Amino acid sequence: MKLLKEGSVSFYLFNDVFYNPLAKFSRTFGVLAIYTFSKYVGRGLVVADSFAASGIRGLRYYVESNVVDKIVFNDKNPVAYQNIVYNIKFNKIKDARVFNLNYFVFLPILGRGHFDVIDIDPYGTPAPYIDLAISFVKNRGLIIITATDLTALCGLYPRAAFRKYGSDIIKTDFCHEVALRVLIKELVFAGGRHNRIVLPLASMFSEQYARIYAYVYDGRRDFPKNNLGYIEITNDRCYSVKRVSDSVNKPYIGPLWIGSLHDKEFIEYMIKYVDKLNIEESEYKRLKSLLKLMKEEIELPPYSFKVSKLASKLRVSPPTLIDIIDRLKGMGFKAGRSHLGKDYFKTNAPYHVVLEVLEDLGKK
Amino acid sequence: MKLLKEGSVSFYLFNDVFYNPLAKFSRTFGVLAIYTFSKYVGRGLVVADSFAASGIRGLRYYVESNVVDKIVFNDKNPVAYQNIVYNIKFNKIKDARVFNLNYFVFLPILGRGHFDVIDIDPYGTPAPYIDLAISFVKNRGLIIITATDLTALCGLYPRAAFRKYGSDIIKTDFCHEVALRVLIKELVFAGGRHNRIVLPLASMFSEQYARIYAYVYDGRRDFPKNNLGYIEITNDRCYSVKRVSDSVNKPYIGPLWIGSLHDKEFIEYMIKYVDKLNIEESEYKRLKSLLKLMKEEIELPPYSFKVSKLASKLRVSPPTLIDIIDRLKGMGFKAGRSHLGKDYFKTNAPYHVVLEVLEDLGKK
Repeated sequence: MKLLKEGSVSFYLFNDVFYNPLAKFSRTFGVLAIYTFSKYVGRGLVVADSFAASGIRGLRYYVESNVVDKIVFNDKNPVAYQNIVYNIKFNKIKDARVFNLNYFVFLPILGRGHFDVIDIDPYGTPAPYIDLAISFVKNRGLIIITATDLTALCGLYPRAAFRKYGSDIIKTDFCHEVALRVLIKELVFAGGRHNRIVLPLASMFSEQYARIYAYVYDGRRDFPKNNLGYIEITNDRCYSVKRVSDSVNKPYIGPLWIGSLHDKEFIEYMIKYVDKLNIEESEYKRLKSLLKLMKEEIELPPYSFKVSKLASKLRVSPPTLIDIIDRLKGMGFKAGRSHLGKDYFKTNAPYHVVLEVLEDLGKK
Repeated sequence: MKLLKEGSVSFYLFNDVFYNPLAKFSRTFGVLAIYTFSKYVGRGLVVADSFAASGIRGLRYYVESNVVDKIVFNDKNPVAYQNIVYNIKFNKIKDARVFNLNYFVFLPILGRGHFDVIDIDPYGTPAPYIDLAISFVKNRGLIIITATDLTALCGLYPRAAFRKYGSDIIKTDFCHEVALRVLIKELVFAGGRHNRIVLPLASMFSEQYARIYAYVYDGRRDFPKNNLGYIEITNDRCYSVKRVSDSVNKPYIGPLWIGSLHDKEFIEYMIKYVDKLNIEESEYKRLKSLLKLMKEEIELPPYSFKVSKLASKLRVSPPTLIDIIDRLKGMGFKAGRSHLGKDYFKTNAPYHVVLEVLEDLGKK
């Protein structure tokens, strides 16, 4: 048993209970997202930390966001359960409950609509847990899912990817973005099955964590069919997007979400609210810069180009991102950075134009 | 309150509790399927009638098949619950339990692996209920799902179809077969999410009831990716089949199940066992003839041609099915009937050959 500190929370970690210090930043992002969501919907929140381990994520939501009316933890591991009970007492939290149940029992016994927010952070794929959460979260609620099975979601194991996510996934330079987009597709289809609309508010990749923050509400008419489709990889390696109902040529990736990774208004709120919270200096800077990148990528195409890869292919030295983006914008194209990597840019310019720009800038 | 009889079971129907006399034959088929499944897996069965209404389906499974160790009913309507309790007493059934719960609570509280068979017969689409059943049924168990929302599944409302089932569905002459194949696809993908393999044992359409009997077992390697694909409708209205990963041209239907609608061995067992059960004369004949048609269609393509439609298009009088099938077989093609309608045949012959045969036979 160790005493640890993360954000504003001190907590004990029992032996054999999982804790990933690398996910600290993703939890800080989560605190801000929870805070923002509460303002977005104008109410206090009942939050489920449904694969809680030590409970650190839920503890931080409660202590740091100040918008959680009730935090409910669940973990099927009895040692984790004891660990959470201990940490609740240690932090003197009154508005908390803890369960030691299978996930599929935990949500139903609390009833449909009990939770404003359901956070799913399992070991490996979240695919088995999505359908139930989409069905049980409150109308106008929030689902947060984590995926760490990046080998499947990035296309290293296409057969496993198809089996778990129902999509053809080919390995690409921008595979982490594909991972986020396949996850969103799964959320949206689960919504369709339950007469609910799902809208991604924020999608984040960091330290092998893919996380989706998705708004869920009752509805049928708004079903976003046009945002579900394929990314086609044509012979000259130029990407174009096809609707599900358009013709699709091999090789392609999908079906996946081809709409925005984030909701513009929500990201703007997050940027606004980042100063309301008490965030460590180092994370504060990283958070502000991440949110800026997220805002930048919202209206850009669902794929990215990797500078180092293109430069090496063209045998030129890699230009700076700023130079590439400025040049493309000067030519009348959309262009911007991606939060998915420092080496990436997004543009709607055709591939041959992208190559010309890289070649020209690389020579200088 | 009325006293009714169906098969070997007499039962009371309370006011305002749903009962569809037209589904009688589909329930008789179900009794035979349950009996066959018990022999197939070599064990007695714990069966869930999870949308039970009066309980007639589960009562018949128990009384007529003689292979049910325990029958468990559920209905969220309190009047239906009372009705089932009454009918259990009336039929002096000891190995029965009744619940009055939401479906999403009913399955989890009994625990994973409690049921050998989960029967889902809801009002309208079964789409919201598939994921949980696939996850909770016993390894090497049976899922039975009913769909009555044929307007979506047949492609009359393509937007609703895509939202609920994630497939593009175009209205065709063989739309009831498409309905079955889209449902199977949903079961197979739900299996993939839960590390389970799904195999259709029998798929049946009658009286606006689409019913799938599917075997579910733990597994990953056998995931039947090659049986998931699209039915393409090419310019000359000839159908061909594309794998999900092949190129797909518009207009097409899918993704859907393009493998066999039934398991050959299972249908052969059903044919063998139909004499073991005490079935009314009129239904016995219909059942035997249906099973023969099912066996015939097993190895044929995932689409059908409608004789009357083709004959009218060609302005010839409609030939008999036997003549068409004999002719096609004589030419070296596969051909056979479909259980989905008396006016349908299946063949792997190209469309222009089909037209030539119809034209030639129609002239005589």
